[in-house]
Amino acid sequence: MNRIQIVGATGYGGLGILELLLNHPNFEVSSIVARDEAGTRIDLVYPHLAGRTELVINSPSNDLIGSDCDAVVFSTPDGVSQQYASNLVTLGRKFIDYSGDFRFRDTDDYAKYAERHPSIKENSHKAEQLLNRAAYGVSELNKTNIAQSEIVGNPGCFAIGIILGLAPIFNEDLVEDGIVTVDGLTGSSGAGKKPAPLQHLSHLNDNVIPYRLLNHQHVIESEFTLGRLGNAQGATIDFIPHLLGTTRGILSTMHMRLTKSIDRENILNMYREFYKEDTFVRILDTAPTLKNVLGSNYCDISVFVSEDMNRLVVISSIDNLMKGQSGSAMQNLNIMFGLEQNAGLDKTPMYP
Amino acid sequence: MNRIQIVGATGYGGLGILELLLNHPNFEVSSIVARDEAGTRIDLVYPHLAGRTELVINSPSNDLIGSDCDAVVFSTPDGVSQQYASNLVTLGRKFIDYSGDFRFRDTDDYAKYAERHPSIKENSHKAEQLLNRAAYGVSELNKTNIAQSEIVGNPGCFAIGIILGLAPIFNEDLVEDGIVTVDGLTGSSGAGKKPAPLQHLSHLNDNVIPYRLLNHQHVIESEFTLGRLGNAQGATIDFIPHLLGTTRGILSTMHMRLTKSIDRENILNMYREFYKEDTFVRILDTAPTLKNVLGSNYCDISVFVSEDMNRLVVISSIDNLMKGQSGSAMQNLNIMFGLEQNAGLDKTPMYP
Amino acid sequence: MNRIQIVGATGYGGLGILELLLNHPNFEVSSIVARDEAGTRIDLVYPHLAGRTELVINSPSNDLIGSDCDAVVFSTPDGVSQQYASNLVTLGRKFIDYSGDFRFRDTDDYAKYAERHPSIKENSHKAEQLLNRAAYGVSELNKTNIAQSEIVGNPGCFAIGIILGLAPIFNEDLVEDGIVTVDGLTGSSGAGKKPAPLQHLSHLNDNVIPYRLLNHQHVIESEFTLGRLGNAQGATIDFIPHLLGTTRGILSTMHMRLTKSIDRENILNMYREFYKEDTFVRILDTAPTLKNVLGSNYCDISVFVSEDMNRLVVISSIDNLMKGQSGSAMQNLNIMFGLEQNAGLDKTPMYP
Amino acid sequence: MNRIQIVGATGYGGLGILELLLNHPNFEVSSIVARDEAGTRIDLVYPHLAGRTELVINSPSNDLIGSDCDAVVFSTPDGVSQQYASNLVTLGRKFIDYSGDFRFRDTDDYAKYAERHPSIKENSHKAEQLLNRAAYGVSELNKTNIAQSEIVGNPGCFAIGIILGLAPIFNEDLVEDGIVTVDGLTGSSGAGKKPAPLQHLSHLNDNVIPYRLLNHQHVIESEFTLGRLGNAQGATIDFIPHLLGTTRGILSTMHMRLTKSIDRENILNMYREFYKEDTFVRILDTAPTLKNVLGSNYCDISVFVSEDMNRLVVISSIDNLMKGQSGSAMQNLNIMFGLEQNAGLDKTPMYP
Repeated sequence: MNRIQIVGATGYGGLGILELLLNHPNFEVSSIVARDEAGTRIDLVYPHLAGRTELVINSPSNDLIGSDCDAVVFSTPDGVSQQYASNLVTLGRKFIDYSGDFRFRDTDDYAKYAERHPSIKENSHKAEQLLNRAAYGVSELNKTNIAQSEIVGNPGCFAIGIILGLAPIFNEDLVEDGIVTVDGLTGSSGAGKKPAPLQHLSHLNDNVIPYRLLNHQHVIESEFTLGRLGNAQGATIDFIPHLLGTTRGILSTMHMRLTKSIDRENILNMYREFYKEDTFVRILDTAPTLKNVLGSNYCDISVFVSEDMNRLVVISSIDNLMKGQSGSAMQNLNIMFGLEQNAGLDKTPMYP
Repeated sequence: MNRIQIVGATGYGGLGILELLLNHPNFEVSSIVARDEAGTRIDLVYPHLAGRTELVINSPSNDLIGSDCDAVVFSTPDGVSQQYASNLVTLGRKFIDYSGDFRFRDTDDYAKYAERHPSIKENSHKAEQLLNRAAYGVSELNKTNIAQSEIVGNPGCFAIGIILGLAPIFNEDLVEDGIVTVDGLTGSSGAGKKPAPLQHLSHLNDNVIPYRLLNHQHVIESEFTLGRLGNAQGATIDFIPHLLGTTRGILSTMHMRLTKSIDRENILNMYREFYKEDTFVRILDTAPTLKNVLGSNYCDISVFVSEDMNRLVVISSIDNLMKGQSGSAMQNLNIMFGLEQNAGLDKTPMYP
Repeated sequence: MNRIQIVGATGYGGLGILELLLNHPNFEVSSIVARDEAGTRIDLVYPHLAGRTELVINSPSNDLIGSDCDAVVFSTPDGVSQQYASNLVTLGRKFIDYSGDFRFRDTDDYAKYAERHPSIKENSHKAEQLLNRAAYGVSELNKTNIAQSEIVGNPGCFAIGIILGLAPIFNEDLVEDGIVTVDGLTGSSGAGKKPAPLQHLSHLNDNVIPYRLLNHQHVIESEFTLGRLGNAQGATIDFIPHLLGTTRGILSTMHMRLTKSIDRENILNMYREFYKEDTFVRILDTAPTLKNVLGSNYCDISVFVSEDMNRLVVISSIDNLMKGQSGSAMQNLNIMFGLEQNAGLDKTPMYP
Repeated sequence: MNRIQIVGATGYGGLGILELLLNHPNFEVSSIVARDEAGTRIDLVYPHLAGRTELVINSPSNDLIGSDCDAVVFSTPDGVSQQYASNLVTLGRKFIDYSGDFRFRDTDDYAKYAERHPSIKENSHKAEQLLNRAAYGVSELNKTNIAQSEIVGNPGCFAIGIILGLAPIFNEDLVEDGIVTVDGLTGSSGAGKKPAPLQHLSHLNDNVIPYRLLNHQHVIESEFTLGRLGNAQGATIDFIPHLLGTTRGILSTMHMRLTKSIDRENILNMYREFYKEDTFVRILDTAPTLKNVLGSNYCDISVFVSEDMNRLVVISSIDNLMKGQSGSAMQNLNIMFGLEQNAGLDKTPMYP
């Protein structure tokens, strides 16, 4: 059994990886760490865990982080894991980070992201020498790199839906001017467990709230990833996120002009070929929906073409807490430890 | 035009009475007061008001409260209006308070409520000499008193649904031992606009959360009111509130044993007779639902009887922000100023 | 009082105009007609109407339609009002139709719509000689025409949100190639009251379901209207409707490339100028949301511009049963009868 | 591998057991049968199953039902399995039925249920000789019997929440007069996949709808089971089901007077003792909620006592499609085949 420490265990992201690890045949949780509720059993904080674990929450400390484990998962805000990174590498601990700390290959790329991020105050990185040793954690695009890296930057929830949806078409350089407009629809859980005005039920229930219009930080990693893929020559993503009054899920509807006319069947085949070895990407004939992937690690994708075949619409759907967060982290851990990608992740979506 | 000042204007309760007054033929809003956002136009705080008012929020002060108006509506927490009460009475201003400050006839009754209330720290009342001059604002039961009082204590949202649902049956002393068990189902807006863990969408959506079990403070005023009504000989309400993942509405299902067998039609007729002059109470043949009263001041009620006619179930339904709060306040203001009860309140429920 | 007959009174559209007319100072309902539930009081079919009306539903017949009234509102499927149209014109009755029967100026335009519509079987029109006497009922763009016409074709719910959102920019011919991509998000009530798999709560709750991708019939009237407006030179709308698990509201996010760079403030000012006399269109600085217009006749609009000012995003929001249907019909009736546009429509949106 | 045939595979109940069996280490699905969509792959009917199974739906026939399998699960309406029962017993096939066909020990009991059921037309039973050979499938109360029976009548969804919540207290004969009042709150999925007015999203969303007041058929099996348990002397359940605008879950709040005063801690201990070997019943200190059991086979229970300790409130919560249906069926299959009760059922509830 590989032993995993979870830092930030009481947020939705920490909870997600905890639950996956508790049911995993090849991993066990060595310790859980969080600033809140230290000293308390996590099943008393989250009663849905009653009978499933009695792990006690530990306060974070330099000594604790990375001790007695094979790998660490940081489900923490931007800026946290970069403080512990050098020490972990010295100790020989692998780690995955959920924030943007290790999603970028160099300080230039990171600075563009940091500038856009609403809560990063300074653009400098505390472990910049490690950036080029980290792998960006879109498992389907970056398997070899992830398998060989000691550090994985888990992708942003919106980013992974956009990147998986657009990778085959950018790979072939078929997007006119590299410009894609994306309307993203997200459940509230992406904002975490902390009560806030936008996520207050009386405000959000039955509502749709566009936010960070043309300004969301997940666009940066999407543009870098897609614009440098295969034959691609750069990417510009005009992204409007919309907050929905539901808990889970991200559905992204992506529009672009094509550099040449192609019919739908050809594009579907291109997608099927591109993802033929990827068990978690399902190319559908019909439109993806939020509920068809709920609770699972699937990313459902379909494409639609204008009558004149000059314009393309791609729709992708994920569970933002699974493929958009802990599911991808689990998949990346499997890859890092040489296991089957779907170990501990072989779950049917919950319908209805 | 009668001129009304609203204190606590930026909460849901203040917003509710503001909107009713803005559309009322006989009232106008002289000023709005709130601790947050002072100096800002309220339609910029609440964009749904764009084009409907440009009133600017004022900071509260001793000089301001009660100035330049005919009456004040306090949509404020417990303990606020009692600080201003003596001064307002001296100035000759009528006022309505949404909290429990003026719902009780004397300090003994108030103390029982204060003890039960989760956020009242001391049980003493700062204007106890005014308690017996205030009217309890269940318009249907207390019209004459309200018309003659300068102070009205607006009822609690759960209390009004319970009291209207049970008044005819307590009035006839038909409840065995005076004991009623009530399961109350409420939308989230009763908890106000302040973000909190229980009202966080990711937590409450699709959920049902029982809370303050057998311990909710609204029971106190319900027991006093029902237990002293007509032939009643005391009341004991076992009350379980349940929080639902919806915004508005309270549906109360109330169970009791009867002191004698009665058939359903007789009880329905008793209810119709009791409320025959009350335009906002609708006695239905079918079960009330949350949505049939949404956005209106109606209280829908129906009754159901066990096969042996020894046990009774009463169901009542209100919009917690209307009949459960601002609608009742508007109705009480109408009564206090000698207007028709439904002036400014003649609204069809919003369906679907 | 002007007397109105409602045909199709028991659907959501009929219900909507019934409720508006019941509260209107200048109109009364002469009779209500529907195929279902004939002979029954409508408040027994819809208990939220208890105490508000006791109108009895009548079966449709050639004699009844148009009798004893000044105007008829058809809230009926495509193909119904065109059967009664000639007779109504002969009788001198004005009428408004909610379907596509009278939205098009000639048979060519109508045929394009009929071909796209999922439930129109034949493309011929039964009253084609009346098409050019009907006004298309986007009140803000077509006031004079509506005032002078005896027939008004009420716009489609998606169409009105798209048309109001794009009219100022098409009017100035600022859209590159006239191409706009639109992601429309709609509540379930647009599909009416009839139970169906897509609107089954267990299926739609917490879900997002894209449907009729690039193929919705409301696009046709949007393209005709926008493409012929002012300096416009045609319009192509790539439209993806998304069904949400909420009851009311349509939010449309519309993307386009501009023919020249313009900054946001200039575009906002262009919009404010364009709609300066239109009380129901609100140009906002912040993003529109579904809930800020709920239950009202408002259309909220805002615009956002890419960093290089070459691409524009417009967001519009309406209540699909109000501005998207009965509210617009009421506004058009007001215009047809020479009343203030907001008579009977002066309602604050319901928030929270 | 034990081979299971599913009859009624395209309803929510059939889907539920299909998904559990597909992931089960000791079972496999031999065939799926349904009247709709015969000849189609079930993953094309339910795209959330894409990549998980390619089983094709078969039309029901006398030859097919029971062929090539070790056991049959009937997820069919009342009256279906009793037609095939004798033949299955002859063939030596075990079976579980989701309807009321085999929940009752004799024709008298069955007749009381049939009379109450809204869609059973005749009260006679087509396989009455088998009634006393069937076990009632509340696994926690009836393990031995289930293990030895070839037929199991899976309990009603409301019944299992009520029975598990009240069994310890009836077992000790502590309920005054055996009378309990129950308010049950249920998601919409209990009504199945067929579109219907009550489950139409525009009607049910944000609503609470009480239905079959004091008249629900699940009460019958609850009264028989509880009233005959241990020292119990009969049971009367006054039951009000309430339909909520959510998909899954049943929360039951149950009120009773006690035959003697007991404090809360004693009752909690009695419950913990009663269920000490039952992994799926969790006795909590805090109130159960819908979401804490979502997607799992748990039944969460807690109890609350009036101040004078004379009255008791019990709250239980289940996922109606898991413990309330397919989860219980899976648990019963495990028992029938001598496996661990939680085989294939060891799932963490989905939160948030």
